[in-house]
Amino acid sequence: MAEMPVAESPVFQRLTLIGLGLIGSSVARAARETGAVGEIIACDADAAVNARVRELGIADRVEPEAARAVAGADCVMLCAPVGALAEIAAAIAPHLGRGTVLTDVGSTKISVIRDVGPLVPAGVHFVPGHPLAGTEFSGPDAGFATLFDGRWTLVVPPAGTDAAAVARVEALWQRFGAMVEVMEPAHHDRVLAIVSHLPHLLAFTICGTADDLADETRQEVLRFAASGFRDFTRIAASDPTMWRDIFLNNREALLEMLARFTEDAQAMARAIRWGDAAYIEDKVLRGRKIRRSLIDLKQA
Amino acid sequence: MAEMPVAESPVFQRLTLIGLGLIGSSVARAARETGAVGEIIACDADAAVNARVRELGIADRVEPEAARAVAGADCVMLCAPVGALAEIAAAIAPHLGRGTVLTDVGSTKISVIRDVGPLVPAGVHFVPGHPLAGTEFSGPDAGFATLFDGRWTLVVPPAGTDAAAVARVEALWQRFGAMVEVMEPAHHDRVLAIVSHLPHLLAFTICGTADDLADETRQEVLRFAASGFRDFTRIAASDPTMWRDIFLNNREALLEMLARFTEDAQAMARAIRWGDAAYIEDKVLRGRKIRRSLIDLKQA
Repeated sequence: MAEMPVAESPVFQRLTLIGLGLIGSSVARAARETGAVGEIIACDADAAVNARVRELGIADRVEPEAARAVAGADCVMLCAPVGALAEIAAAIAPHLGRGTVLTDVGSTKISVIRDVGPLVPAGVHFVPGHPLAGTEFSGPDAGFATLFDGRWTLVVPPAGTDAAAVARVEALWQRFGAMVEVMEPAHHDRVLAIVSHLPHLLAFTICGTADDLADETRQEVLRFAASGFRDFTRIAASDPTMWRDIFLNNREALLEMLARFTEDAQAMARAIRWGDAAYIEDKVLRGRKIRRSLIDLKQA
Repeated sequence: MAEMPVAESPVFQRLTLIGLGLIGSSVARAARETGAVGEIIACDADAAVNARVRELGIADRVEPEAARAVAGADCVMLCAPVGALAEIAAAIAPHLGRGTVLTDVGSTKISVIRDVGPLVPAGVHFVPGHPLAGTEFSGPDAGFATLFDGRWTLVVPPAGTDAAAVARVEALWQRFGAMVEVMEPAHHDRVLAIVSHLPHLLAFTICGTADDLADETRQEVLRFAASGFRDFTRIAASDPTMWRDIFLNNREALLEMLARFTEDAQAMARAIRWGDAAYIEDKVLRGRKIRRSLIDLKQA
């Protein structure tokens, strides 16, 4: 982002952020640092979060009432868990001005289009988005301005969305340093199911499996956590509400990917039981190959 | 390790390392830096590895013949994949001097005791060990002297092992900065199955599942690998021979842990299908709790 002249004109005059967790507070910081928006209005359902946002000074104004927070905004970005978006959309819809761009950052897109789409008034442009960025920390203190820098943001407009509105959302993320790609909703949900949702499901599950072992063994799981398990717990440390909503809202794609994975894990179990060394070696080699591809693509 | 005076007397006069991969070459470096052994003899089955060890200068002598390499050693440490240990033990057994301590670093202990134990001559002390340390890299260039510093090493002697020999193996690892605990073999294999072997199995499997998706989707798996998948590929980048051998040699415990995990994953799938939000949230919270315990125990 260092190359971006601060003098570059704002993409939006007034950005309202609904939800100031890790992502929302990072957007606020990035928007200010890059000058990508003229004014930042912050609105969270949690009074403690609003108070903290005021203390941090990362928004120009904190407005706890969503209906008031969106008044006069030319961009409204929903940064709450995907399960909360329908209710938020219903509350703000009558207060969105004509020409406003409404966007979000949720990890599931079919559900967001299904829940929010019908509530969007005529003349408001709904452009769903999804920055593929995050850490295992949550809340307004966890955010930082460079979170999206060099990472992908997927823009996932329903068919027929105004092209100029899509271009503005793309431009906003590019100002934050993100690489942007437009993707079709169903395809987005399948890709995310395998690259993100299933890995999180596995990580949460193995933590539970370990927790269920006898008390004595559980203590040792913690004491002797080798690198494998330690990395899984980092993934598993994420926000419970956010992940509950993701799992419930990408049900079909996630269950399909879990079914594929389970078949593959059972095939591996069979190879172990029957001593099929070549099969096991082949699977380990494929893991290594994928890792190398990621390094080549600078995603690792 | 900075507090250790180099003048401290060596634990062993001559240490022979069989296998100079990540672990063996790290032991060589740590042994020299800490002065924990008087002389280091290196021996690998791969001529290219032996040549590289000579270039790196991390051993006092490289001896490609295992029988000759162990002559005169008061400690022999087997650092090859666990599937190769029986053959190595058979080759070196007649050449081990009375009073020699024979140890290893394998990730499975019941199998090592089963394969190597019966070959150990009378008067030689067999003290299996397992440093819980590693990276996703392999080979003699990947090793470093501080790999074991602040990490656990488990010492897993069969019943009736000479106590003085066990104490010397413990002392060696402590000189490398490791925390040492003595553990019973069957218990070791179960703990490792859940903290290390199962996580690796899951990581290898999800890489294969992703690789099996249609060509177009696979490309996107790589391009959009979010943090979840990226962490899994790091785990999955490990050495194929080593992991093949671990899976085949900890079969019972690993299959049991995989069965428990699969039940738990199916329960999660059912909760997602039927919209059981409380169940999902509870599982995510448990992951977070385990993560926090690890941080408290300084293992993360």
